[in-house]
Amino acid sequence: MNTFGKIFRLTSFGESHGRGIGGIIDGCPAGIELDMDLIQKDLARRKPGQSKITTQRKEADQVEFLSGIFEGKTQGTPIAFIIWNKDQHSNDYNNLKDVYRPSHADYTYQQKYGTRDHRGGGRSSARETIARVVAGAIAKQILAVKGITIQAFVSQVGEVKMEKPYTETDLTKTDDNIVRCPDEETAAKMIERIEKAGKNHDTVGGTVSCVARGIPAGWGEPVFNKLHADLGFAMLGINAVKGFEYGSGFAGTKLSGSEHNDVFIHSKDGIRTKTNNSGGIQGGISNGEDIYFNVAFKPIATLLKEQQTVDKDSNEVTINPKGRHDPCVLPRAVPIVESMAALVLVDHFLLSKLNSM
Amino acid sequence: MNTFGKIFRLTSFGESHGRGIGGIIDGCPAGIELDMDLIQKDLARRKPGQSKITTQRKEADQVEFLSGIFEGKTQGTPIAFIIWNKDQHSNDYNNLKDVYRPSHADYTYQQKYGTRDHRGGGRSSARETIARVVAGAIAKQILAVKGITIQAFVSQVGEVKMEKPYTETDLTKTDDNIVRCPDEETAAKMIERIEKAGKNHDTVGGTVSCVARGIPAGWGEPVFNKLHADLGFAMLGINAVKGFEYGSGFAGTKLSGSEHNDVFIHSKDGIRTKTNNSGGIQGGISNGEDIYFNVAFKPIATLLKEQQTVDKDSNEVTINPKGRHDPCVLPRAVPIVESMAALVLVDHFLLSKLNSM
Amino acid sequence: MNTFGKIFRLTSFGESHGRGIGGIIDGCPAGIELDMDLIQKDLARRKPGQSKITTQRKEADQVEFLSGIFEGKTQGTPIAFIIWNKDQHSNDYNNLKDVYRPSHADYTYQQKYGTRDHRGGGRSSARETIARVVAGAIAKQILAVKGITIQAFVSQVGEVKMEKPYTETDLTKTDDNIVRCPDEETAAKMIERIEKAGKNHDTVGGTVSCVARGIPAGWGEPVFNKLHADLGFAMLGINAVKGFEYGSGFAGTKLSGSEHNDVFIHSKDGIRTKTNNSGGIQGGISNGEDIYFNVAFKPIATLLKEQQTVDKDSNEVTINPKGRHDPCVLPRAVPIVESMAALVLVDHFLLSKLNSM
Amino acid sequence: MNTFGKIFRLTSFGESHGRGIGGIIDGCPAGIELDMDLIQKDLARRKPGQSKITTQRKEADQVEFLSGIFEGKTQGTPIAFIIWNKDQHSNDYNNLKDVYRPSHADYTYQQKYGTRDHRGGGRSSARETIARVVAGAIAKQILAVKGITIQAFVSQVGEVKMEKPYTETDLTKTDDNIVRCPDEETAAKMIERIEKAGKNHDTVGGTVSCVARGIPAGWGEPVFNKLHADLGFAMLGINAVKGFEYGSGFAGTKLSGSEHNDVFIHSKDGIRTKTNNSGGIQGGISNGEDIYFNVAFKPIATLLKEQQTVDKDSNEVTINPKGRHDPCVLPRAVPIVESMAALVLVDHFLLSKLNSM
Repeated sequence: MNTFGKIFRLTSFGESHGRGIGGIIDGCPAGIELDMDLIQKDLARRKPGQSKITTQRKEADQVEFLSGIFEGKTQGTPIAFIIWNKDQHSNDYNNLKDVYRPSHADYTYQQKYGTRDHRGGGRSSARETIARVVAGAIAKQILAVKGITIQAFVSQVGEVKMEKPYTETDLTKTDDNIVRCPDEETAAKMIERIEKAGKNHDTVGGTVSCVARGIPAGWGEPVFNKLHADLGFAMLGINAVKGFEYGSGFAGTKLSGSEHNDVFIHSKDGIRTKTNNSGGIQGGISNGEDIYFNVAFKPIATLLKEQQTVDKDSNEVTINPKGRHDPCVLPRAVPIVESMAALVLVDHFLLSKLNSM
Repeated sequence: MNTFGKIFRLTSFGESHGRGIGGIIDGCPAGIELDMDLIQKDLARRKPGQSKITTQRKEADQVEFLSGIFEGKTQGTPIAFIIWNKDQHSNDYNNLKDVYRPSHADYTYQQKYGTRDHRGGGRSSARETIARVVAGAIAKQILAVKGITIQAFVSQVGEVKMEKPYTETDLTKTDDNIVRCPDEETAAKMIERIEKAGKNHDTVGGTVSCVARGIPAGWGEPVFNKLHADLGFAMLGINAVKGFEYGSGFAGTKLSGSEHNDVFIHSKDGIRTKTNNSGGIQGGISNGEDIYFNVAFKPIATLLKEQQTVDKDSNEVTINPKGRHDPCVLPRAVPIVESMAALVLVDHFLLSKLNSM
Repeated sequence: MNTFGKIFRLTSFGESHGRGIGGIIDGCPAGIELDMDLIQKDLARRKPGQSKITTQRKEADQVEFLSGIFEGKTQGTPIAFIIWNKDQHSNDYNNLKDVYRPSHADYTYQQKYGTRDHRGGGRSSARETIARVVAGAIAKQILAVKGITIQAFVSQVGEVKMEKPYTETDLTKTDDNIVRCPDEETAAKMIERIEKAGKNHDTVGGTVSCVARGIPAGWGEPVFNKLHADLGFAMLGINAVKGFEYGSGFAGTKLSGSEHNDVFIHSKDGIRTKTNNSGGIQGGISNGEDIYFNVAFKPIATLLKEQQTVDKDSNEVTINPKGRHDPCVLPRAVPIVESMAALVLVDHFLLSKLNSM
Repeated sequence: MNTFGKIFRLTSFGESHGRGIGGIIDGCPAGIELDMDLIQKDLARRKPGQSKITTQRKEADQVEFLSGIFEGKTQGTPIAFIIWNKDQHSNDYNNLKDVYRPSHADYTYQQKYGTRDHRGGGRSSARETIARVVAGAIAKQILAVKGITIQAFVSQVGEVKMEKPYTETDLTKTDDNIVRCPDEETAAKMIERIEKAGKNHDTVGGTVSCVARGIPAGWGEPVFNKLHADLGFAMLGINAVKGFEYGSGFAGTKLSGSEHNDVFIHSKDGIRTKTNNSGGIQGGISNGEDIYFNVAFKPIATLLKEQQTVDKDSNEVTINPKGRHDPCVLPRAVPIVESMAALVLVDHFLLSKLNSM
């Protein structure tokens, strides 16, 4: 159950304080020239310590490829890779060995497996998402060949929301600020909001939005594997995610059908829709318009303040974590959202080759 | 790509105006005595024509089992079943043969497959969900043996919302009214809202909420197949669904971590949490609390009023559908949401047998 | 575990004395025009009662399609089908309810599931292979479009063996005699051998050989899903099969490497091999030469003579089956072998679309 | 397509002359204490240079675990591992860059992927089986807890065959000689035969047999995933394998049903069979008797003598390989056969937990 994808499959491994985090990509077509810098660049966008609003923990996060690439090109064989763990302060967690931190996976892992690696969350650590970023960065390069771009951005932090629709912003400006919101004014408020949370030794949640452009009509499967169902599944598998909506989403439930329907029109680019409440997907299949969706992230559970909880013997205990943690996960989640979207889309690109003879 | 589930697998087949809709359930344990009336009862909750606020189309929707059950008990072998199509007015659709109805799957199917069965949506019709209700009704019976109940209900229609938290309502009253909202007062307003939409030849969306009780701690997989990711995937695969959130959901993104965290406490039932913003799932694994989530349904696209669109040759055309259609899909979606939840949960029940020796 | 195939997937259902046998084919490309007569013709080659050397049981074995085909063409949606059971003498088996017939699946099913449908073997009956023949007949039609033919034939019955290599026979003559051996002289001896077994109320085994022609180089997966591993898996899943070998097979183990190696040569058709000990597969991947293999069938276990055995309470009992059974399964196994080969090959045809961009 | 298994899944990676060979085991139950020495011991049985009749190439083949094991116990999370490549003489292969060696995978890989790593066979090298031995050694330890043993041995080399049935030999003596045949006298002849092949710069094939004891009745799936079909699939996926038979195998095809049937008897251990032509499997499901099977290995294709072939441009060339290669792969294949059998059996052990509630 650590494999993602149907054709282009990532199997991920590793614990936050073990030897490293990595994975195997199976099903990657042969003959693709990979730009290693682009992969490393996405890892840098995800890594801790990149700005004043992220954790100050330093991790190099250098990927090392173990197979499947020869003379710079994919071979069609499995691509294995690892990011070695370094600077892991495992001893920071010794006092948490038998304690169940609130809203973490400590208790549930123990119940599931009867055992757990308590060091820094073990397998449940968000550090595991490194593997997804590596695979996603490869998927992005495949999609780029087909003219497809994927851009995620922070659209809300706590109560601070980017009110402007994405169609009226320049998404290429997303990485121009440290919070990764393409609207400069909103970005400034978001940064302020995160700094406030940090000062309070507290955390804050928000939403990441994502837009995929250039996807031709016809990708997606009609029943269970609707394109948005696969995207939602991918997003809900990211640590701290609490919700997913695409196109008009939850707000669209308040519209009447005559307001909501996207009328087909004839255009110079062929058949298009006048509006895009469908978020580029109809009946589970792409219709050629922009695909866009929102992902809800809870405020992360690790607080640098005193909290009540219980230990494995049901004793009440007080914890007061030390260490270096994010007050807000959103800016670092942007490349993760993009990566998971890329994995889903490259899978449906490959599946689309099988629709007809 | 018409199979749902990992261990308990439903493969669905059928078009709305073909011979029938059905499926094969593979991986159902042997020796389970099935109550056929319970299956038929859920089909009745889903079927058209059941009340004044649903379509007046009459469908008997009687399930016929073809294999896998002998002397009333499951055999461990595949359970095949069919619901024969009857009273299908295929000719109603002849004039739509080459037309792409707005916000339907007509255009995208044509783009994907290069061909399509235009009669009543073919495979994209929501009639396909019958197969899921049959499988889900079996899954529910397996879960019931383990003391697990699943109850969905309509929590919002258009702007009419049940404001009371579910914990303060009696969910067993859900089926006491035709809209399936357990709060009688809200239900009355919802019915009014749907009737208004019907009179306008328009449609209205809303949300279905669902609560699963009795699930032990330890179900769910840590990385991609988080319990809520599988639930979200299942819900997003239902026709007309635009979003999914569990626990605190999108609203939770506005809380700070210290407000959001669910503190563990010692209780007579063992370890519990004081609040349940986690929606019964932490790190992707159940923690023994109620699992609850919301599902957003768009207003359905079939309007009994004139609409502009184009045909396959990009000609602009006006359509004016006749026939018998739902002004609001929500009341009939309740058993579908429950069924998909049951399929996910029974799968994780079976998977949980594999965690340890 | 009742699904076969990776892309083109058959899920089979049904018991020999239940309502019927059928299946769902998922993953069949859209737009293929199907010749229903060819499907029915293969069912006729498999059906009982077709000649004096097969069981005299009469089964019509008419396939009824339930979905996925519209106006004679595949739709890309699941193709469901059923062959209704008729003329099933379920009562013939009442006296066997608690008895474990020697070398049947009665005992093992009971041990596995704690329950079983005793009527005619239930799910373990070779009647289940009907579903495979239907799916295989569709797969053959897809392969035929690509110029690929698959021909199986009976190469051995008991000690009677076709000594001539297949390359020196005319495989199109296979169906010219009732035993389905392309060498007329050997066929006559085989028929004699089967009639002898029938007279003795006994049964006889043998081998079916199969040749697939026209497969381009490059099909197959390098490690676990070697083309011959998938073929072997498919064959070993057929009732009564005890062994599989391809190319030089078991005999090849006695050669030295210098005798066994297939030397590459330049020919007008491009690169070819001088000999074909590899059976058209090298490193698990097709090399463009004929693919050929042998399948060992045991003598079937149902004898029309007295046998000792035990019942479920370990009591020793004597059984003396009545009814209509085959003295030799080989002639009827020919279309089953072809069908399973076709399912494997069509899967690898589809997989081969994914090797590169 | 580099994943083996349904519940206990090995995904393998690596090329013979890349960074290393390894894999991820997903689905291993939590809480199993692993004996690392037993894993290393099986690697030593597989490794080159272990005796005078194997290649003199030296490889340390030390496994390094990267995840999933904490304080000596499996965690239920993915177990990743690598065996780093050392002492790889990649330059030995430079002159073979564009040449298609006879009966190797050079040509077919090139046709499949349009590219290949020519160094030492790349992904097609039998060195990849190291990953299977590691995973298999873990599977064996799980099975051992259940009282199950798996013992493979060399039963034939060229025309030298162990005539004694395995039931009359002491299988624990298998590793007492370098050819791994439990019959000392036959072993001596086999060694002689291999030495002869080596002196001739030639190679020789043979068969490995395998016996699994202690498997309870009820493992295996009835239709496609018959226990022997999964075993056959596993064996046919091993490099150089040309055939598989279980129980009476190909020889059994010559028996009549009355000779072949295994009569059930009542014994102090419950229901048993008098004979075991079924090889411990009936209807695809284990019956509690010994499971035994034979695997045919061709003489390996790498000869240390001159051979004719062609290069990628169809030019005829003569190759004359140097280096250190095995004259006979059989003795080193013994742990590989055991490993693959263990992977299949542990999978069916886990699947058997799902048969009933």
